[in-house]
Amino acid sequence: MENTSQNIRITADIMKSEFFRILKSVGFKEDRAEKCAEIFMINSLEGVYSHGVNRFPRFVKYVLEGFVKPDAEPSFVSGTGSLEQWNGNLGPGPLNALHSTDRAMELAGENGIGLVALANTNHWMRGGTYGWQTAKKGFVFIGWTNTCPNMPAWGAKDPRLGNNPFVMAVPYKDEAIVLDFAMSQFSYGKIETYRNDGRQLPYPAGYNKNNELTSNPVEVLETMRAVPVGYWKGASFSLLLDIFATILSGGLSSSQVKSCSTEYNVSQVFIAINLKGLHNFPAIENSISQIIGDLQKSSPVDENAKIRYPGENVVQVRSENLKEGIPVNRGIWEKVLSL
Amino acid sequence: MENTSQNIRITADIMKSEFFRILKSVGFKEDRAEKCAEIFMINSLEGVYSHGVNRFPRFVKYVLEGFVKPDAEPSFVSGTGSLEQWNGNLGPGPLNALHSTDRAMELAGENGIGLVALANTNHWMRGGTYGWQTAKKGFVFIGWTNTCPNMPAWGAKDPRLGNNPFVMAVPYKDEAIVLDFAMSQFSYGKIETYRNDGRQLPYPAGYNKNNELTSNPVEVLETMRAVPVGYWKGASFSLLLDIFATILSGGLSSSQVKSCSTEYNVSQVFIAINLKGLHNFPAIENSISQIIGDLQKSSPVDENAKIRYPGENVVQVRSENLKEGIPVNRGIWEKVLSL
Repeated sequence: MENTSQNIRITADIMKSEFFRILKSVGFKEDRAEKCAEIFMINSLEGVYSHGVNRFPRFVKYVLEGFVKPDAEPSFVSGTGSLEQWNGNLGPGPLNALHSTDRAMELAGENGIGLVALANTNHWMRGGTYGWQTAKKGFVFIGWTNTCPNMPAWGAKDPRLGNNPFVMAVPYKDEAIVLDFAMSQFSYGKIETYRNDGRQLPYPAGYNKNNELTSNPVEVLETMRAVPVGYWKGASFSLLLDIFATILSGGLSSSQVKSCSTEYNVSQVFIAINLKGLHNFPAIENSISQIIGDLQKSSPVDENAKIRYPGENVVQVRSENLKEGIPVNRGIWEKVLSL
Repeated sequence: MENTSQNIRITADIMKSEFFRILKSVGFKEDRAEKCAEIFMINSLEGVYSHGVNRFPRFVKYVLEGFVKPDAEPSFVSGTGSLEQWNGNLGPGPLNALHSTDRAMELAGENGIGLVALANTNHWMRGGTYGWQTAKKGFVFIGWTNTCPNMPAWGAKDPRLGNNPFVMAVPYKDEAIVLDFAMSQFSYGKIETYRNDGRQLPYPAGYNKNNELTSNPVEVLETMRAVPVGYWKGASFSLLLDIFATILSGGLSSSQVKSCSTEYNVSQVFIAINLKGLHNFPAIENSISQIIGDLQKSSPVDENAKIRYPGENVVQVRSENLKEGIPVNRGIWEKVLSL
């Protein structure tokens, strides 16, 4: 977190109860306020502050402005066996996503695999949330969302692709291995943090006015041309994720989610796979341990560094934040309390 | 293709009939020789020479050495509704992959979505082949394979991850939009081509001995430390693709596919989704056209450049090669003829 000297520590319980109080006050029914508060708290507890406490005031603002409808629940549109299409009715993104995750697991329980495509929903906050949920219940997960257009096509200057976060998760011991990444190399939030700190980014983050790759955050914020993960590869991956989310759900494409200043009404895909039905189910834990064990035998470039798998850090951050309280910027917390 | 002065043009028919002749001579039954020859020919016709004609002699070598068993057909292992596990029995990778693609479409026809996980199979050559097959039949496709370990974990020096090609495809007009990318920024084949031509790569391709990113092909071939797509992001994506392929199929992980000099026995995943069952099916073509239309409105950096979608180039190359013949390095073609 930036400006750590301005950080205070808030216990998970207090944070959740403040979120709960505020959500009820803006029109969430008790059980929905509870679930939604929990997601924002857990995202913060697990270190994804940008899509937890730091984002909470903006989420509430969207509710007050009518972009996110606190009462709206997802409704079934159509289905064939293992695949269902749902309408999010512009309800709260995290609740819609949680519902879709649960439904995908139910379908997977019946048929091995389940896919829920969700139209007319809102920002799901941290995609990893739904990966963790699924993996903790013994399923594997693949899911993604489209976003407003915030990244240019390969070879172009103007943003027409979303950074479309993509998630994969598998159970691992009593925790999970969770991949959660957006298609831009760095988020604008991260680029702004580096600018505020007066630092260069560790890798090229975008293009400058002369169409040259640059690690200078000021230059990237000037052009708003973030570089896709793997250049043309991430740009293409982003395009396909958008096409899939749009046609499978029947919802809006990134290019139809016009405004990034008020991003709402996006399309999402949730896939769950039931491991219990596999013939090799009893061997799966060993199989994953074999892969992670081999990874950990890597020779690190920095002798003292540990080679980590995605999600490994979450367990440690969660444990520290549970014990010490969740670090929050004082100004942000005061803003939350004032809501 | 490198050394274009050494290229000759071979018609698709002649190329296919040579492949067919050779495959029959090394133990393929007539119908399997026909299908396999067609895949190698089409990969070449569509411009993916590295996994078409250029790779054919190595494929035949693997058959002769017993790594690829020409007669072996995939056998059903286990299944629940929409998800099936199959054993490739070390048969020819392209035939096993084609069978799995067809079976995934059958399952999707029944249940909306179908997943086939395939253990003990061999290199599928060009992953895009199966995306094109599926999309041309009106389904969407997601699939991937693991490979031998050819890329280090993030922060590590020694190769323990595969570059695990990943494919997504959707029907588009009478053709398809097909994404087919490996998790290393450049393949070693591409890096070698740049070295042979004495050129620098257009973007950093790996690390040099001093742990610095470099676009110099000689330096990367010295360390064999290819850089993953999007740095830590592609390394993590690769890991998750390997875990999924391994546990869903019950096959070998990248780290168990020990040798990259004779890569065999890999694990793959094939997912097909039936568009015809979706409530918005009649609107899907317009929906994709809207997205591609918006992409094509991009302002290109180079005024004369056209912004392309993945797979767009294939249609043009296929048409040119059908008319002019498929370009082949003379030496490679002589080698094929001698088989």
